[in-house]
Amino acid sequence: MFYTTNSKTGLLSSEESRHCTKVLRKNVGDSIELFDGMGTSYIAILTKVGKECTYQIEKTERHKSPYKPVHIAIAPPKKAARMDFMIEKLVELGIQKLTFLSTQHSERSRLNPERIKKQVISACKQSKQYYLPEIDYNTSLKQIIESYTNLYTCHCNPNITKTSIQEIKTPALNAIWLIGPEGDFSIQELEMLKESKATFIDLGEQRLRTETAAIYVMSALKYLTD
Amino acid sequence: MFYTTNSKTGLLSSEESRHCTKVLRKNVGDSIELFDGMGTSYIAILTKVGKECTYQIEKTERHKSPYKPVHIAIAPPKKAARMDFMIEKLVELGIQKLTFLSTQHSERSRLNPERIKKQVISACKQSKQYYLPEIDYNTSLKQIIESYTNLYTCHCNPNITKTSIQEIKTPALNAIWLIGPEGDFSIQELEMLKESKATFIDLGEQRLRTETAAIYVMSALKYLTD
Repeated sequence: MFYTTNSKTGLLSSEESRHCTKVLRKNVGDSIELFDGMGTSYIAILTKVGKECTYQIEKTERHKSPYKPVHIAIAPPKKAARMDFMIEKLVELGIQKLTFLSTQHSERSRLNPERIKKQVISACKQSKQYYLPEIDYNTSLKQIIESYTNLYTCHCNPNITKTSIQEIKTPALNAIWLIGPEGDFSIQELEMLKESKATFIDLGEQRLRTETAAIYVMSALKYLTD
Repeated sequence: MFYTTNSKTGLLSSEESRHCTKVLRKNVGDSIELFDGMGTSYIAILTKVGKECTYQIEKTERHKSPYKPVHIAIAPPKKAARMDFMIEKLVELGIQKLTFLSTQHSERSRLNPERIKKQVISACKQSKQYYLPEIDYNTSLKQIIESYTNLYTCHCNPNITKTSIQEIKTPALNAIWLIGPEGDFSIQELEMLKESKATFIDLGEQRLRTETAAIYVMSALKYLTD
């Protein structure tokens, strides 16, 4: 599957052209599938291969959005490999919106939107999803609190009473799942969330890494709503 | 947390000694926690640091096994990074037993038990689990079929009727979850499983990578049994 931002050009991007020619070794006349990340896919015939591949569309298909309304907000993990893997898994499992949170204990502030988008597109191709999830960068906790009415907050502080994730039978609309960063939310942040009537969530006995917590929450919500 | 196979020696392994001295920069008199992977942990005081760290045990604690009876069998993913990540996540989420399956479409046959054990120990430390899960290497599908009465089999073949994972409310005892490899189970393998009354499982609309399917199944079972 190839990604295109504008199928009307009949032209693959230079990166997709390279992939088509060098990796998949496609030939003129071969059939390819394209998608635009907004629910439309195309069957096309390659009319030129090389540094610039061109194609002619044979068939257009419109897909219903398969997304569950799952929105997760998390501080980016420090290690790039963990970040990449987390994005891949969340997209594969069908996340609708992913927000990168800046928190007091966040260890990484700079993000590379181009790299992240590449990961997202690649995971969409793998899992045959025709809609790219929405990604928000560097959002503050304050912004989140102002925008959402249901703040399901997963953190490790043992002194705060929590509700087990199993008790959230039907996640409320306009809900967001906040995942504590490496180093967890600070006491001030937890206080701020408490004042905003956040529901503090218990993910079970094991102490999960931040990206594992996100993948687990995504899996549980997929299981619950599939 | 440090791992020890025999706490009576009062001696950290050379690797744990290096970690203790060079990474954590511990000093004589500092308190450390050790675990033996079989449910016992120790609080000890360091009596020497350096290439060989020694300690004296102050307190011994016995832990109840937190494991769910989850047993997953999967062919090892081809890429080492995916393999490492999968092991880490399954252990963090509390897997009890992990079997590496050799299948017709398996892309990797050689495994490095030492590397795998390292991953497992590291994930146990991270998630504060005092029992190491059991790992089986290079098991054939035939062996699995002979040993288990409930074979929950996740695969991508669209021509075979499946039961959605949500319908498995209480996974049967002596159950094993088989995950299709990259390239899926072969037709012959699926036939063999069918004859053995395997239950074919549907994981939902998205086409998941093999390691994502394993992590999703583990997450769903944790969610179901926590």
